[in-house]
Amino acid sequence: MEKGIFISFEGPDGAGKSSVMAAIAAWLRAELGDARVIETREPGGNRIAEQIRAVLFDDRNTNMDARTEALLFAAARRQHVVEDLQPALAAGKVILSDRYVDSSVAYQGAGRQLGIDRVWELNQYATAGCLPQLTVYLDLPVEEGLARIAAHRSDQVNRLDREQLAFHETVHAAYDELARRHPQRIVKVDARPPMPEVIDQVKALITARFFA
Amino acid sequence: MEKGIFISFEGPDGAGKSSVMAAIAAWLRAELGDARVIETREPGGNRIAEQIRAVLFDDRNTNMDARTEALLFAAARRQHVVEDLQPALAAGKVILSDRYVDSSVAYQGAGRQLGIDRVWELNQYATAGCLPQLTVYLDLPVEEGLARIAAHRSDQVNRLDREQLAFHETVHAAYDELARRHPQRIVKVDARPPMPEVIDQVKALITARFFA
Repeated sequence: MEKGIFISFEGPDGAGKSSVMAAIAAWLRAELGDARVIETREPGGNRIAEQIRAVLFDDRNTNMDARTEALLFAAARRQHVVEDLQPALAAGKVILSDRYVDSSVAYQGAGRQLGIDRVWELNQYATAGCLPQLTVYLDLPVEEGLARIAAHRSDQVNRLDREQLAFHETVHAAYDELARRHPQRIVKVDARPPMPEVIDQVKALITARFFA
Repeated sequence: MEKGIFISFEGPDGAGKSSVMAAIAAWLRAELGDARVIETREPGGNRIAEQIRAVLFDDRNTNMDARTEALLFAAARRQHVVEDLQPALAAGKVILSDRYVDSSVAYQGAGRQLGIDRVWELNQYATAGCLPQLTVYLDLPVEEGLARIAAHRSDQVNRLDREQLAFHETVHAAYDELARRHPQRIVKVDARPPMPEVIDQVKALITARFFA
């Protein structure tokens, strides 16, 4: 049985995560066959995790405490790991996940000031050490990311998008810190060039890492 | 400003927690005034926590992982503490809560074998040390509790009720262990006598502890 491959995509909203991931999924399906590639997202991936996502992104829940939020993301992640990721990896699949543990560390640990070590530790309990072999970190200057959101996605802006510039600067710094702490797993990709160039760079990265 | 009072009610389903708590609430309201007494429950107490409760008690969610469950209970508890309990205590209220942290330790820590110390620690993060001054532990032999549920509440049985006898024996042993660890906070009350006797015993306990 082949060993599975787990790749997560991280970075700010506006960096193009969804578009890049969709292009990579199409490319891998053409190369490896439809049945081998799984696209998923966090929070989400199964009914329980999507129910938790609905609580997290309910626009009425503006008074949600930061620890409540971190515990809910960890709960959704736990169910994602047990119900989806571990079985898929055991079956030799290639998993592409739109966000994973680094998002919690960056957004709740740094952005909401719970502490990046504390949130990392909480998520070790949730994931039991199930980490991606590769995390593609689509890096974009904060102001450019926010400008892209404002220009293209104003109808899709959710509660977490509406935070202030300082929040996003803190999140950005945390991603950089995570990339320093996990240099083998997390690879920073410049998200400023035109999308086709970014996608080609990610393809080259995945080829070199897994299919060379 | 008067200091608030926080009392939780614990024990197996079937022990009469809800009936005892309702009687104690009515008694305290008559003694202290309506505005001073707050009845609440876990998981629940506010919109976010009730949304989390709906995920936990959704009958379709039979495949929920034990750690997912523990993280969801902790998330609901966190929101309960921050949104309801801390403000009420600061305002000098008397809070009566149907279940609190000991339920998680007994049901998830022992019953679902996550470890009572691990679940306690997780809940220290959720509660930031907000513990009841008094926990009324309505103690009932496991088989009597299950027999009462079967006789009187079969229409209300939820997923967590349907576990096996061995599970409830483990939960019962964990409550006993918690009572040994927190002898000042947790007071065991025999739930086998007729309800009026149990209620009188709890009234006497509360009077001695807070109003003597």
